Amino acid sequence: MGKQLVIALGGNALGSTPEEQQKAVLVAAGHIVGLVRDGYKIVIVHGNGPQVGLIHLAFELARNEDQKVPVMPFAECAAMSQGYIGFHLQNALQNTFFSHGMTTHVSTAITQTIVDIEDPAFQHPTKPVGVFYSEAEAKRIAAAQGYQFIEDSGRGFRRVVPSPEPIDIKEKGTIRCLMENGDVVIACGGGGIPVYRKDGKLHGIDAVIDKDKGAARLAELIQADALIVLTAVSQVAINFGKPQQRWLGRITTAEAEQYSREGHFAPGSMLPKIEAAVHFVKAAPGHKAIITSLENAYKAVTEEEGTIITA
Amino acid sequence: MGKQLVIALGGNALGSTPEEQQKAVLVAAGHIVGLVRDGYKIVIVHGNGPQVGLIHLAFELARNEDQKVPVMPFAECAAMSQGYIGFHLQNALQNTFFSHGMTTHVSTAITQTIVDIEDPAFQHPTKPVGVFYSEAEAKRIAAAQGYQFIEDSGRGFRRVVPSPEPIDIKEKGTIRCLMENGDVVIACGGGGIPVYRKDGKLHGIDAVIDKDKGAARLAELIQADALIVLTAVSQVAINFGKPQQRWLGRITTAEAEQYSREGHFAPGSMLPKIEAAVHFVKAAPGHKAIITSLENAYKAVTEEEGTIITA
Repeated sequence: MGKQLVIALGGNALGSTPEEQQKAVLVAAGHIVGLVRDGYKIVIVHGNGPQVGLIHLAFELARNEDQKVPVMPFAECAAMSQGYIGFHLQNALQNTFFSHGMTTHVSTAITQTIVDIEDPAFQHPTKPVGVFYSEAEAKRIAAAQGYQFIEDSGRGFRRVVPSPEPIDIKEKGTIRCLMENGDVVIACGGGGIPVYRKDGKLHGIDAVIDKDKGAARLAELIQADALIVLTAVSQVAINFGKPQQRWLGRITTAEAEQYSREGHFAPGSMLPKIEAAVHFVKAAPGHKAIITSLENAYKAVTEEEGTIITA
Repeated sequence: MGKQLVIALGGNALGSTPEEQQKAVLVAAGHIVGLVRDGYKIVIVHGNGPQVGLIHLAFELARNEDQKVPVMPFAECAAMSQGYIGFHLQNALQNTFFSHGMTTHVSTAITQTIVDIEDPAFQHPTKPVGVFYSEAEAKRIAAAQGYQFIEDSGRGFRRVVPSPEPIDIKEKGTIRCLMENGDVVIACGGGGIPVYRKDGKLHGIDAVIDKDKGAARLAELIQADALIVLTAVSQVAINFGKPQQRWLGRITTAEAEQYSREGHFAPGSMLPKIEAAVHFVKAAPGHKAIITSLENAYKAVTEEEGTIITA
């Protein structure tokens, strides 16, 4: 039986147009095919930052031209991004498998991630999304819609949405079923469509879930053997970019937490990846998390590359 | 063991905004829950006409405001619509099952439908999509992009795309697996994302697949016991709207074809539903197709309502 891997693939690596994305997913597929051939059972959790932003932007701009175009909330835009990226990734994997004479099935499961409406993130939205507005426009929209805005990088005002913790994955049973069936499964895209539970029912909510945290929660729930978090570098470093920079080959969760406290990892960049990795290994002791680059994904699984985090 | 049903649900019935769609899918879920409770295994194929049109429109209008917004081809818009509608329908079914104390899983599979690039439909695009243009604009875009336009209903010029026959469903194995797992499966939305095969690989193409034909092909491929095509009326009629109008309770494929030849069914409305039903029953003799309304779906399965088409 193949070991089960959850692979988190960044949304930024997927480009910003359909053409760029189609090229990017073929590259990603090329680096994953070897693991599938070796019998690993794989769930891919892709990011969706640029894509969900583009879809939301298209609906916002279109409303300037035609007020009949409805407001498209973030949960629905996330669902669209799962279809859009899922299609391209699924298609690229299928075509790559065909080139290698493999008949492995590939499926994309539309996935809802349950968050807690009491999560403090809802009181402090931090994730900038969508287009830039002038201060006056931002104030007008904030008053009309109840949205929150921040000044972003000197380029204008942007809406901020909460980034709550993923609590549960509604479709985990479906994902497990497809994985056991031998499908390469694309799931929990963009961390999952954010929903909250009220009186037992699930409702979409304006939020963005961190994709690496969503992948870590999914890996925990389906008891994957390893969580592979892909990033721009082949290994994690401490003192990154400084003379005393040191690449990390194998660390424990305690060491990772110590380095985090010492400020070695950039918030919004390497830090959430480390946190996701630590979360998974603590929740599934004996299992491992790996942080590496797409190019080194295959070698990282056999522990020739990457930063391995264990209990 | 429950019998297997493929249910084709119209996209027009789903409204034209996220709010309308959320209400509509709850109504649909309320009419399907009884069949699930009775042990039927169900795949839902939803339409996506208004939704794929809205998504494509949003990208077209947004490009007027900001040329950096990329052209979003129809295959990608169809993929987005599968995520968007799938999320709402999946969520409504899950919430409805919860209300009934049921724990049935629901999943949405992003689905590609394979068409033949030699299909004559590609030489004669017939399906109007997207926004209306002036004659001058239409000519300019036609020259620049190679699109085809027609004058539509006196309201201006619209792009037309081909509506080819669905040949195969790439993800049929995944859909069958989920159905056998006991999931209510939402699949082949909008008839499926149109793709064609070239040198063994699949590529997206600008086309729109008839949802009822996609559902019929899927029902054939997974050997469903029945195909249920939902429409606005509880039964099919001959001489519809005339004094000698007669509702049809049970007909053979030969009778259905005879009535079709006699012009009893409107093209673009009842005719493709009849054709889809006949196609399925001919491909799976001994199985049946039912045409009825959403409200009568439950009773139609037990043959108390609807028009039943058999060999």
